[in-house]
Amino acid sequence: MTTTVIIGGVAGGMSTAARLRRRDEDMEIIVFEASENVSFANCGLPYYVSRTIESRDALLLQTPASLKARLNLDVFVSHRVTAIDPAAKNVTVRNEVTGEERTRDYDFLVLSPGATPFLPPIPGIERALTLRTVEDVDVISEAVRADGVASAAIIGGGFIGLELAENLHKMGIATTIVERSPQILAPLDEEMAVLVQDRLEAAGVKVLTRADTKKISDSSLEVVLDDGSSVTVDADIVVAAIGVRPASELAKAAGLAVGERGGIKVDRAQRTSNPAIFALGDAAEKVDAVSGEDSLVPLAQTANRHGRMVADIITGRDCQAQLTLGTAIVGVLGLAAGSVGWNERRARAAGKNIRVIHVHPVNHAGYYPGATQLHLKLVVDAKTDAILGAQAVGENGVDKRIDVIATAMRAGLKGSDLADLELAYAPQFGSAKDPINFLGFVDDNALNGEELVQWHQLEDLVARDNTVLIDVRSAGEYARGDIPGSINVDVDELRDWLNDGGRQQLEGKDVIVHCQVGLRGHIAAAILAGYGIKAANLTGGYLTWAAGMRARKP
Amino acid sequence: MTTTVIIGGVAGGMSTAARLRRRDEDMEIIVFEASENVSFANCGLPYYVSRTIESRDALLLQTPASLKARLNLDVFVSHRVTAIDPAAKNVTVRNEVTGEERTRDYDFLVLSPGATPFLPPIPGIERALTLRTVEDVDVISEAVRADGVASAAIIGGGFIGLELAENLHKMGIATTIVERSPQILAPLDEEMAVLVQDRLEAAGVKVLTRADTKKISDSSLEVVLDDGSSVTVDADIVVAAIGVRPASELAKAAGLAVGERGGIKVDRAQRTSNPAIFALGDAAEKVDAVSGEDSLVPLAQTANRHGRMVADIITGRDCQAQLTLGTAIVGVLGLAAGSVGWNERRARAAGKNIRVIHVHPVNHAGYYPGATQLHLKLVVDAKTDAILGAQAVGENGVDKRIDVIATAMRAGLKGSDLADLELAYAPQFGSAKDPINFLGFVDDNALNGEELVQWHQLEDLVARDNTVLIDVRSAGEYARGDIPGSINVDVDELRDWLNDGGRQQLEGKDVIVHCQVGLRGHIAAAILAGYGIKAANLTGGYLTWAAGMRARKP
Repeated sequence: MTTTVIIGGVAGGMSTAARLRRRDEDMEIIVFEASENVSFANCGLPYYVSRTIESRDALLLQTPASLKARLNLDVFVSHRVTAIDPAAKNVTVRNEVTGEERTRDYDFLVLSPGATPFLPPIPGIERALTLRTVEDVDVISEAVRADGVASAAIIGGGFIGLELAENLHKMGIATTIVERSPQILAPLDEEMAVLVQDRLEAAGVKVLTRADTKKISDSSLEVVLDDGSSVTVDADIVVAAIGVRPASELAKAAGLAVGERGGIKVDRAQRTSNPAIFALGDAAEKVDAVSGEDSLVPLAQTANRHGRMVADIITGRDCQAQLTLGTAIVGVLGLAAGSVGWNERRARAAGKNIRVIHVHPVNHAGYYPGATQLHLKLVVDAKTDAILGAQAVGENGVDKRIDVIATAMRAGLKGSDLADLELAYAPQFGSAKDPINFLGFVDDNALNGEELVQWHQLEDLVARDNTVLIDVRSAGEYARGDIPGSINVDVDELRDWLNDGGRQQLEGKDVIVHCQVGLRGHIAAAILAGYGIKAANLTGGYLTWAAGMRARKP
Repeated sequence: MTTTVIIGGVAGGMSTAARLRRRDEDMEIIVFEASENVSFANCGLPYYVSRTIESRDALLLQTPASLKARLNLDVFVSHRVTAIDPAAKNVTVRNEVTGEERTRDYDFLVLSPGATPFLPPIPGIERALTLRTVEDVDVISEAVRADGVASAAIIGGGFIGLELAENLHKMGIATTIVERSPQILAPLDEEMAVLVQDRLEAAGVKVLTRADTKKISDSSLEVVLDDGSSVTVDADIVVAAIGVRPASELAKAAGLAVGERGGIKVDRAQRTSNPAIFALGDAAEKVDAVSGEDSLVPLAQTANRHGRMVADIITGRDCQAQLTLGTAIVGVLGLAAGSVGWNERRARAAGKNIRVIHVHPVNHAGYYPGATQLHLKLVVDAKTDAILGAQAVGENGVDKRIDVIATAMRAGLKGSDLADLELAYAPQFGSAKDPINFLGFVDDNALNGEELVQWHQLEDLVARDNTVLIDVRSAGEYARGDIPGSINVDVDELRDWLNDGGRQQLEGKDVIVHCQVGLRGHIAAAILAGYGIKAANLTGGYLTWAAGMRARKP
């Protein structure tokens, strides 16, 4: 009889185990999980803190008993594997309750131990709670309900930090997010992330960016901002949600290859440097779909998909892991923020020649009640038009647009192909021209010669003597806020203005147009082209520019 | 100067006009619209009847004046083109207000006159209202608010019929849908459409299928059911929403080629048989993406996309229309029903060798509050695994899944590729294994040998002496409703049962397993395979079977 031992009984490990059984009724399948629970709803933990998820049982999707009954799996919780002997093909496992140790032989070994929260070496860090397991959420749940708890500081403005902030805020706890980098939500670019920060701040959650936590005291944090000033943040509770590190120590100790970023090295079949040992989930390296390079992407759904595949391979099927897009989403205070692939920051840092598009349409037909604004960003290769990545922020429809683009990326569609996707339209669900189509329209226009300017390029461009920046919004919009250096000519009066001497005024100049979101700017650029004047359009318009300015304000 | 004349100023025509101007500042662009409004929100009309869309102005997206100011278009409403002279390259147009006629020369002519509601030759049909224009909605709005109006009959259970039913029902009007065919919502298969019918009936909307309207009287309809019985339907208001016919008379009279179904024939550049004349929108034929055959697909978003393309071609760009998937969605009483590509009925009628998959997962993580059930159906080519079509019904997340599959179809992904799409997951938005992934898992398993049985094949199969149908749900589920001829063995007790003599009982038999939705059935089939017993699984389980039975009940 073949024996497969699986280390880790959550997303990746449990997917492997369940699929193995469905593929092989006779295999011995043993799962060792170091924590007290298997198959728990990792991504639901923050919502149990505030009891948005009311029942703790709802987090526990399976138990060793239910897994035995249905799938004949031998699942051991509170069992920590302490050593792997690849030569002898066995593992040493310790019962965390009794302290008892034993070895267990395997034919195949699957490593899915996950990751551990990163704790920076700050004085007082021992006060910081982390959130990774059901045990962790029990600790946090009790801590936030203790007498006199009125404030919380969350170190780290990533997905889990934001989810926790929402839940603590919902409980009436004064919450501050302390983020060391210039923005929250690293997968997004700054002018997109600031839209989420706006929402947090509007709700009363404090957000400090470029903020370095120097010390954790009894009921506060000492934080230094990048101007050198110090801030004291009230913090009856401190949670560290800075990120995770792959739990690869065991693999390393067993002599398995580990990558530069600390993830267990695997091939496209999730095989480690030892052919009988597989690794997957947060502990293993992934291959980035855009660059083909190794990366770490600690996401549950990737772990689940890879688990299924590892089971297929162990049971004799020949298959390969898909490259990883890093598709992700987070909900915060009624807003959703999603991303797939690379952002602009990463693409520029890698020296890629890119085209970047911002649009801000409503999520469904504007004439139907309840439409809300979407903010979409697309990054494509300037020459090949390959989609490198996308981001979306909005109250509704973010997940749909990210999923459509993730599907398009997987299938190799180009940016301009988005123009002609045939998406479902009824007034409650979309528009005759879906926001996705709009991204494609703008990309198609740019691919065919329309010049786009980015919000972060504007200051330099406008500073040049030869540049004219025309704001083609209405006089009323202009009065409510304008970009320094712009002149105002309403798009509906642009032809008259050009005929009335404006044309001469623009001769020999570098002309940039902008409106509120980009559409009227596009029309204005087309009108100007008809007058022989080449004009660039500020993509995303005033809205994106203003967001960028907020993101960069000191 | 080049002149383009456009007949029809709604979706297709107005998209053409706007794009033409953005591509050519100098072209003369003339739009003749027979109704009193251009660029109105066609798909919003049903919602104005109940004032869900409160303001009539919200339906009127543009006016001739606004289009003149921004795009320098010459738009004439209440102007009906009465003749085209392709040799002289002119049209004759009548001002519907003054009765005045004139001719107008063109270099390019674009036909986007839309379609006209079909009115069957029934006695009293002159009482039936239709819904296509703003004028129509004004008439219906007034009619439903007249004193003493308490009941309405809608002839036709398609998209517009259902949307109207929702809105009339919302106003407290006793509403009956009278549909001649065996089911409402022709794009769906019967067992999917019945889920929508369930919702209508639960809300108190009457639905008569296989119901032929024989006569419309003063305040009722006389309807004959397929058992020959007659029913009188109260109908202070009668609306005919049976479907539309392409408005191709003008094209036909001008000698342009018209297809068998009455649509104007066009090539992949939307060119009619006359190279200076283009046609698009509901009046023109489309090319079906699955079969490559001519079809009629009267959908706003196709018209919009083709409008953009026609403008590109007229202004010198070389491009081709994408094949049409017919992606569509409708919202009814909190439920959404969507489809893309072909349904099972159509595929079987065309003699295709298909594989059909039903799944019924929740729209997002079940542990997060508010998850609702989705019903998804996938039709793939049994051999090539090409996706032929998909359907979805549910309260939430229907549009997203249909759009993802529409994107996958456009890009040529296979059914089993859906297993590995990397979609955005957070508990409010999806699951670590998204419903789309589930479709792919089931397809992948079936592609690799797992046999699936369809609900409509079950009766014949069970009638055979040699078949054993095992319901692997719990005893409690079985007691609440079972499939005739099934025996009950809980999946969690299946191994014991097999070891206890069950194995011998099944030897040499054709075994079919089923559960509630298909997942436990899949596990049971895997267990049986381990015991050397090949078993087929009822896809979609009891839920799909029961829906099919409801759909077919006399």
